[in-house]
Amino acid sequence: MSKLPNVTTSIFTVMSKMAAEYNAINLSQGFPNFPVDERLTDIVSRLATENVHQYTPMAGYPPLMNKIAKLTLDSYKRTINPETELLVTAGATQGIFTTILALVKENDEVIILDPSYDSYESPVLLCKAKPVRVALNDDYTPNWETIEKACSAKTRMMIINNPHNPTGKILTENDFIQLKNLLEKYPDIIILSDDVYEYITFEEKHISAHTKDFLLDRCVMVSSFGKSFHITGWKIGYTIAPEHLMKEIKKVHQFLVFSVNSISQFAISEYLNIVDVNLLGKFYQEKRDYFQKLLQNSRFELKACEGTYFQVASYANISDEDDVTFCKNLIIDHGVAAIPISTFYSDHKDQKLIRFCFAKDNFTLESAAKKLSEI
Amino acid sequence: MSKLPNVTTSIFTVMSKMAAEYNAINLSQGFPNFPVDERLTDIVSRLATENVHQYTPMAGYPPLMNKIAKLTLDSYKRTINPETELLVTAGATQGIFTTILALVKENDEVIILDPSYDSYESPVLLCKAKPVRVALNDDYTPNWETIEKACSAKTRMMIINNPHNPTGKILTENDFIQLKNLLEKYPDIIILSDDVYEYITFEEKHISAHTKDFLLDRCVMVSSFGKSFHITGWKIGYTIAPEHLMKEIKKVHQFLVFSVNSISQFAISEYLNIVDVNLLGKFYQEKRDYFQKLLQNSRFELKACEGTYFQVASYANISDEDDVTFCKNLIIDHGVAAIPISTFYSDHKDQKLIRFCFAKDNFTLESAAKKLSEI
Ligand SMILES: CSCCC(=O)C(=O)O
Ligand SMILES: CSCCC(=O)C(=O)O
Repeated sequence: MSKLPNVTTSIFTVMSKMAAEYNAINLSQGFPNFPVDERLTDIVSRLATENVHQYTPMAGYPPLMNKIAKLTLDSYKRTINPETELLVTAGATQGIFTTILALVKENDEVIILDPSYDSYESPVLLCKAKPVRVALNDDYTPNWETIEKACSAKTRMMIINNPHNPTGKILTENDFIQLKNLLEKYPDIIILSDDVYEYITFEEKHISAHTKDFLLDRCVMVSSFGKSFHITGWKIGYTIAPEHLMKEIKKVHQFLVFSVNSISQFAISEYLNIVDVNLLGKFYQEKRDYFQKLLQNSRFELKACEGTYFQVASYANISDEDDVTFCKNLIIDHGVAAIPISTFYSDHKDQKLIRFCFAKDNFTLESAAKKLSEI
Repeated sequence: MSKLPNVTTSIFTVMSKMAAEYNAINLSQGFPNFPVDERLTDIVSRLATENVHQYTPMAGYPPLMNKIAKLTLDSYKRTINPETELLVTAGATQGIFTTILALVKENDEVIILDPSYDSYESPVLLCKAKPVRVALNDDYTPNWETIEKACSAKTRMMIINNPHNPTGKILTENDFIQLKNLLEKYPDIIILSDDVYEYITFEEKHISAHTKDFLLDRCVMVSSFGKSFHITGWKIGYTIAPEHLMKEIKKVHQFLVFSVNSISQFAISEYLNIVDVNLLGKFYQEKRDYFQKLLQNSRFELKACEGTYFQVASYANISDEDDVTFCKNLIIDHGVAAIPISTFYSDHKDQKLIRFCFAKDNFTLESAAKKLSEI
């Protein structure tokens, strides 16, 4: 009997594969298709001939860890101790998995909002703990009342994702006030905050859970250079946690991967000297605006997008197919791949909504929009 | 309460750190200190400017997977299906962790030989399963009688490591006959074979568990390009398993890392066209012979070494300190770092033995041997 009987191939794999098969424009799986900053690839080319090919220390390459601490200070005015509060991971996914494995025990409950990215439930199940799904409001804001109702003495962790994939929502100061009130009643709940799109926000700025005083000793934050530097394939992320939690996370990390790709760590460490992550929001805001403009005269109805590089769209004016069927036919009949939003829900109920990734060069966005506008 | 209350910082981290502090010659943690093949680093330099920076497919970059299948065919005359029987991992450590998480359930028992590399127990404990340690014979051969006594209906997995770290022992045809007899009585036991040093054997050739007919449907093999190509920092390994087991392993992998470092996979894929792994045994055999010769007139007594890049030595003629103390003093007083063999035993009982890593350039081996010969 399988330990994960309900796991199937992820929707991202399914759709990217189908897009390739039908030679469709791939706006499904979230990854950029434009070239990586030449300054970064030049660093890699040069470093390859240097002494960068053996194990880095278990928790990360120390100069990179110092740069991440500096980035955290510059971005959020938060001082972290890289030696005790930081871990470099093989992507944010590994940070999430490792954190859950380290901190969640049998019969614990873990609050996961619905819809959610697909990687939170399986590690909880592998711990023999219980994922407790709580629906977001219709506008994808958290419903703090229903969240509170779902909390109990058994609740060990609540997973938030801010900015939120797939809906592009970001949390507000008011959300954090509500969270604070809730957590006062539950001193043992840990917040796992998936902030991989932290630098991709638009009109409103990202509020980072791990910078909130009331969360300092109970928030684990995971992030990813894959999103911030357009290098999703590198699989380099990092986790910030208070020392008492980080100690446990490192114990699992030590035997889960031991350490992570050395060249990539050396390269990102150098790149952090010259790159300005604060340009990222503007860069993607322009892409969002351009993509929205291109679809203005289409029959898709676009939802608000506050962050991430994903645009949610309703096709209610076009078809009454369920969203999985609609996405498949969109590839086959119109040559554009997207992700059905239903797959982010625990019950996979049809939402009549799909998600486009706009982390693409303008030509790709134009070509896709042309096809989408002809429907 | 910690889920891994007994885990401390690994001995490899402790010793490498101490070596750096005292500016000692580091023959402790296993990693080469000579330059990586220029043909490989040239490939990386060139690839960096190409389109190699986004997610590879979940189970691995397909051309690399085909090359691994070819390598397996060339090396062992075994045909594997890369689509269903192969997974590219973030190092062998991730392959081991993922396999155990996927296949071992609560209350299962897992046979682990004693001494063993340190990464097998923790994933078993995280599954709430029971590690059952079985002592090797005094000459580090498996004692099939005691192994059989340790097996029961609860035994789900047996972990073997061939060639064996730290002792350098390799399994013989006779070992596999004994294993076959044993497994006939226990149809549910899976063999997890850690073969990371598979290409580093000397007088006798490596016998690969996963090529044995009787193990085809029940052996999971993990290997690592880190050891074979002198790139321990890259953290790229692979796992071969029959489809029914690989299906479960992939389910966990999908949420544990999703995919692994793209540039490294592209580079290794190209390098496999031109590199001859069969030269590796000879290369390290010369290093072993040279290191043994250099220590010939020292007071260390060297054990047989059939494979791996580790040399076990007794210091009984020099000191009666326990091996941890001896290693610490060896760094402080003599400027050479090694690993105490006791740390590979579940009870950490003093063995009066230490392990040197001879994956070092000749100058380093000479400098270390000079210091070691003066004791
Ligand atoms: C790891 S594949 C999924 C990439 C992603 O973050 C998304 O498309 O939502
Ligand atoms: C991952 S650090 C340990 C390296 C190694 O394989 C060893 O020294 O035994």
